[in-house]
Amino acid sequence: MKKVCGFAPASIGNFCVGFDVLGLALESIGDKVEVSLNGTDTNRITQIVNGENLPMSIDKNCCSVVIRKMQEALGNFRGLDIRIHKGFESGSGLGSSSASSAAAAFTYNEFLGKSFSDNELVAFAAEGERLASGTAHADNVAPALLGGLVLVRDNNPIDIIRLPIPKGLFVVILFPKIVVNTKDSRSVMQQNISLQTATNQWANMGALVASLYQNDLSLLSRAMVDEVAEPARALLIPKFEEIKAAAKQNDAISFGISGSGPSVFALTDNITQAKKIQEAMKQVFYNTSIDTMSLIESLANNKGARLVDTF
Amino acid sequence: MKKVCGFAPASIGNFCVGFDVLGLALESIGDKVEVSLNGTDTNRITQIVNGENLPMSIDKNCCSVVIRKMQEALGNFRGLDIRIHKGFESGSGLGSSSASSAAAAFTYNEFLGKSFSDNELVAFAAEGERLASGTAHADNVAPALLGGLVLVRDNNPIDIIRLPIPKGLFVVILFPKIVVNTKDSRSVMQQNISLQTATNQWANMGALVASLYQNDLSLLSRAMVDEVAEPARALLIPKFEEIKAAAKQNDAISFGISGSGPSVFALTDNITQAKKIQEAMKQVFYNTSIDTMSLIESLANNKGARLVDTF
Repeated sequence: MKKVCGFAPASIGNFCVGFDVLGLALESIGDKVEVSLNGTDTNRITQIVNGENLPMSIDKNCCSVVIRKMQEALGNFRGLDIRIHKGFESGSGLGSSSASSAAAAFTYNEFLGKSFSDNELVAFAAEGERLASGTAHADNVAPALLGGLVLVRDNNPIDIIRLPIPKGLFVVILFPKIVVNTKDSRSVMQQNISLQTATNQWANMGALVASLYQNDLSLLSRAMVDEVAEPARALLIPKFEEIKAAAKQNDAISFGISGSGPSVFALTDNITQAKKIQEAMKQVFYNTSIDTMSLIESLANNKGARLVDTF
Repeated sequence: MKKVCGFAPASIGNFCVGFDVLGLALESIGDKVEVSLNGTDTNRITQIVNGENLPMSIDKNCCSVVIRKMQEALGNFRGLDIRIHKGFESGSGLGSSSASSAAAAFTYNEFLGKSFSDNELVAFAAEGERLASGTAHADNVAPALLGGLVLVRDNNPIDIIRLPIPKGLFVVILFPKIVVNTKDSRSVMQQNISLQTATNQWANMGALVASLYQNDLSLLSRAMVDEVAEPARALLIPKFEEIKAAAKQNDAISFGISGSGPSVFALTDNITQAKKIQEAMKQVFYNTSIDTMSLIESLANNKGARLVDTF
């Protein structure tokens, strides 16, 4: 029986300055989805490894919802057995539902022999996001599928731009293990913002994109400011200001909240400094009741979704 | 007696997607400022050609205010005679006060033998904007001084980025000769905007900057959308929708309001099409009581402020 297994990585949504429109793929953590025909006309989720709290119902799980949308587009309703392997925790702000949705879209497309374009896959995977957060934003699923740093100019129709990443950058992630629900994190955002704040944000967004093309890390650092989401969402993250100070004191190029949090990230161009930042951020939670997960990745290898041999 | 005369061009503020932070220098129209020592310790405005309504008082004219700020920074209070030649009408939305302020800053700096950096000149010229519109925005004075397309990431301290411009582009300007005061045009803007509108704008800003580095005119066209200022300011411009339709029907890459209006602009990559767009936009006002000024420029030569031989 033909089985296809694909992986899609975690991702950093917003990337400070790009609330709801920018996302960076990670590499070392992510979700796997395996699909195979089950001989019926109904999809089934047969297993979710490390995701005991996630729904097995095909109408409520983002993987099966994404695959169903793809089947509807093709008029192909041969039933699939779907196995899901969660590689990191949901509620981390690292795009858990996106990794699953992207892995599902990618894997089923490979199973089909690549029936869909990249943009179509992004749109399908975004339907998993709609299920998870109420809106079909592509800022996590696009990098999870395509790798790298992706700007979503428009969600309908999907219009995405793969941005260059300066060489030699490292990202340091810290996940303080409390759960922040994406919907809750969205609800703390005001639905109107001042014109001045908005103006600052699009000035910084333009500057960020310019810094990437110009390989200008000083400008990157100045541009990576989040006046929109961080003031509200920082309040949901324990010891946020201390973590930020720890990163900045260790010369982080930038620091911000990953997606809706509580994970935070810092950028640096130096592996030694990356390790110092990681240690300093972890230290904030020593002798507290909050566990942390942290990791360091080079940004040179974040390739997005891919086939894997084993589930 | 040493006289120095400098020119600074008109400019297109906002450039659709960059409300308050983007500006494009024009080339063929602008203002001249001439300075010479007058042997006293007081500056005087001795002449304003084509600016009968502009203040001659050194405390109220943007040129003398800019120069005074520069003198204060240097502690150099040798009195100057200042002559101003307005090359285009104020209230056009083409950065009239900016052209004068930039010309004043540039010319006095040349008179001094280049005492100030580009960033310092932008900051001084922005003080002329403060006088004209109440806020020291640099989005017009920066391109008027430096040429090209400039992004103002921050006004305090000045942080500006000169963006690349795809080769072969032309801009078509139409100025319907009604006066829109910058302060009035600012007052129609809401001081809060929806998070969704703001998000769309920074997505488009990021996409615009990417399109410039990638030489991607299709993306440029998709990104040059103004959801922030245009809906409010279009109401102040007679026949706005008809002008926009005229430009779009003639394949303009983009169309928008220049600064606070009423001037509008269109981009195209073809001189034949530029002439068609110009004619179609002008035709909207045939048999009306509103005169128009229009011009076509290549974007290859917009060099910003420069010395000129004759006042």
